[in-house]
Amino acid sequence: MRTLLKNAKILKMIDENIIEGHVAITDNMISEVGPDVDINAQYDKVIDCEGNLLMPGFKNAHTHSAMTFLRSKADDSSLQDWLFKEIFPREANLHPGCIKELTKVAILEYLTSGITSCLDMYFFIDEYKEACDELGFRSVFIGMYNPKDGRDVDSLIRMYKEWNQDKNALNKMVIGMHAEYTADEEQFMAMENCLKTSGSPFYVHACETYSEVKECIDKRGMTPIEYFDLRHLFDNGGAIFHGVYLTDNDMKILKEKDITVVSCPASNMKLASGIADITCMLNKGLRIAIGTDGSASNNALDMFREMYLLTGLQKIATKNPVSISAFEVLKMATVNGAIAMNLDNAKYLEVGQLADIIMIDLMRPSMQPINNIISNLVYSGGKDVVKMTMINGKILYFDGKFLINEDISEIYKKAQSLTDELGIIKQ
Amino acid sequence: MRTLLKNAKILKMIDENIIEGHVAITDNMISEVGPDVDINAQYDKVIDCEGNLLMPGFKNAHTHSAMTFLRSKADDSSLQDWLFKEIFPREANLHPGCIKELTKVAILEYLTSGITSCLDMYFFIDEYKEACDELGFRSVFIGMYNPKDGRDVDSLIRMYKEWNQDKNALNKMVIGMHAEYTADEEQFMAMENCLKTSGSPFYVHACETYSEVKECIDKRGMTPIEYFDLRHLFDNGGAIFHGVYLTDNDMKILKEKDITVVSCPASNMKLASGIADITCMLNKGLRIAIGTDGSASNNALDMFREMYLLTGLQKIATKNPVSISAFEVLKMATVNGAIAMNLDNAKYLEVGQLADIIMIDLMRPSMQPINNIISNLVYSGGKDVVKMTMINGKILYFDGKFLINEDISEIYKKAQSLTDELGIIKQ
Repeated sequence: MRTLLKNAKILKMIDENIIEGHVAITDNMISEVGPDVDINAQYDKVIDCEGNLLMPGFKNAHTHSAMTFLRSKADDSSLQDWLFKEIFPREANLHPGCIKELTKVAILEYLTSGITSCLDMYFFIDEYKEACDELGFRSVFIGMYNPKDGRDVDSLIRMYKEWNQDKNALNKMVIGMHAEYTADEEQFMAMENCLKTSGSPFYVHACETYSEVKECIDKRGMTPIEYFDLRHLFDNGGAIFHGVYLTDNDMKILKEKDITVVSCPASNMKLASGIADITCMLNKGLRIAIGTDGSASNNALDMFREMYLLTGLQKIATKNPVSISAFEVLKMATVNGAIAMNLDNAKYLEVGQLADIIMIDLMRPSMQPINNIISNLVYSGGKDVVKMTMINGKILYFDGKFLINEDISEIYKKAQSLTDELGIIKQ
Repeated sequence: MRTLLKNAKILKMIDENIIEGHVAITDNMISEVGPDVDINAQYDKVIDCEGNLLMPGFKNAHTHSAMTFLRSKADDSSLQDWLFKEIFPREANLHPGCIKELTKVAILEYLTSGITSCLDMYFFIDEYKEACDELGFRSVFIGMYNPKDGRDVDSLIRMYKEWNQDKNALNKMVIGMHAEYTADEEQFMAMENCLKTSGSPFYVHACETYSEVKECIDKRGMTPIEYFDLRHLFDNGGAIFHGVYLTDNDMKILKEKDITVVSCPASNMKLASGIADITCMLNKGLRIAIGTDGSASNNALDMFREMYLLTGLQKIATKNPVSISAFEVLKMATVNGAIAMNLDNAKYLEVGQLADIIMIDLMRPSMQPINNIISNLVYSGGKDVVKMTMINGKILYFDGKFLINEDISEIYKKAQSLTDELGIIKQ
């Protein structure tokens, strides 16, 4: 299968340069890029981009996709009430049969926002993988130790090997745990074993709230980051999610162990957790990626919202409008996300990389006039400028329509019925 | 001309109720609303809403539309550099011939965001009015005292009378000044005269930055709000823009004089001005409306961004996720905006009100599942959920397409050429 995207502006994300040219795709890989691609060669499909912008899709480096059933279910409530009265009791109702449909609603939203892959942490990853496979969406799943559900050390190591055999596979797997404060000694030991034997990078929520860090210090005499490091969990790299409260020493460790900090500005704002000190982390040379978090704590699944907020909140936090550049943020949302997700083959729009490409409609009014395309994207962009979302060489979204083999109203109907069922809190 | 919007969910914005039914429009007014509208009567145009949501359009209560030429021109710079090195030198290049095309780009973006009217303050309002008339967009313009351009007291009073003769006219006018710190005694005296004779409410930027308030206190021994009150400028009501730094006494005055505070959260964030204390203002019973400000300081012109930020930033500022309700914010963006703009006939989706109506596409993934339509709108909404924008009974935007009598690529081309010309800073 050969596809040609012709007459485009192309932002490879290797640097800020935007070139004019064409992109040829063979199966799921980018085979040619530039002004010299032969547009008269034989292609199965040709799309005229009419001067619009092609760039790598956004990488959502932290989410819990199936949480769509909790969207708008518990807004405007305190973190404790939110978690213990609204979220946990409803999550207790979850069963494997829910995950697929609830995830599909999230995937549809990702497509509208130009998100081409997710690093996802939630229950029942086999069912989540089914949703991704059925819609053609790329994800990296975080497998967690849970022997009650058959996820013991051996099973995680075997999964890691099997799911990552083909480096260009649509869906892959890494290993992680929820958080320091929800793990017991058995879990820490299991993680050590898993990571040492499998070689997987490590993924974990960390330093999201002030009280989380304080309680860890009270209990262990050190921060969560220091404790993970002591337990050798960072030895194969990986990422932490949130990182709102990091000490200088935490940042030093994260830098030394090449751990990405995945910032989730909308979630941290909604739950009043605080503003991560991205400016300081960048000064210390840390790699930042961006995540939407789940739709219970956001509520949208929109990389434009996150990019805009990430820059904006730094201006508020530092009281300085001279903050992070638009290109730096765009890099976080693409290249750095791919690195965080262990997807070195999805970093750039370049020959030999996976064909996860989006087209930005430069003829939307928010993209006009053109003083600076990258600034327009980061500061004025939104879902309405996403003209095309291609994953693994297949166009899944074009001109506001989903090009999938399923009726979206059926997906909504099933998800709504599950949402209604799961919304009931059992006494 | 009779139009029927049938099979809709209807949010009148009188309260939180959402009813099922139909809306009939006669010329530019809403003539019938509810389940009993005769859908088989004679109509010139019938739209099947297929269960989607109809609600009043958003009222953008503070903007400088023609500033589109500065979008993405000066990001990531300090307020002083931004204003004095980037904005003012380029604004000095403006001439009446620019305003129309630059404004049209903004109007196109307003339509994509469901904004059906603006309260606009900028240079050359005759040319701005032309842009609105030509595209069918509703605005209330702020006429400012500027005798060099023929806007003396008599002319402002005459304009106020003429432009407001027809209370349902597409474009109307009120009187105001830029700010306390840019006005001299002559301007204050002129304002007093204008407002006393015309009866116009008063509009002004106020208390946007800490230094603005401090300098006023140093100079006049009182805050800008206290000074405006002393000069009787609040006697006919009106609105102040920004209100980031308000004292208790300021809020008392604003409440007594029934002045709306128009909050511009994105602009205040971009320029690191601060976070307005909306929570406190609401507790004191003040009316809040919402503005995008111009695209130089935002950079998008998007009411969804503003609504979301307004709630989110309160959670950050108060460190409390229990903040303003979604309905309260939606009211600010619609009803309160109309009141601020002196448009009592555009507050609700109700019989006898102007037919400024938007349709929200509930089948977009960000609007699913439906736990709470109003929360979905405020916390997950974006331009991509706006299916229709109707102003003055005419559908100007539907399914991503502009239904205007002009070629949008021509509008962009002209605006781009003006942008390039105006972007050069003359030495």
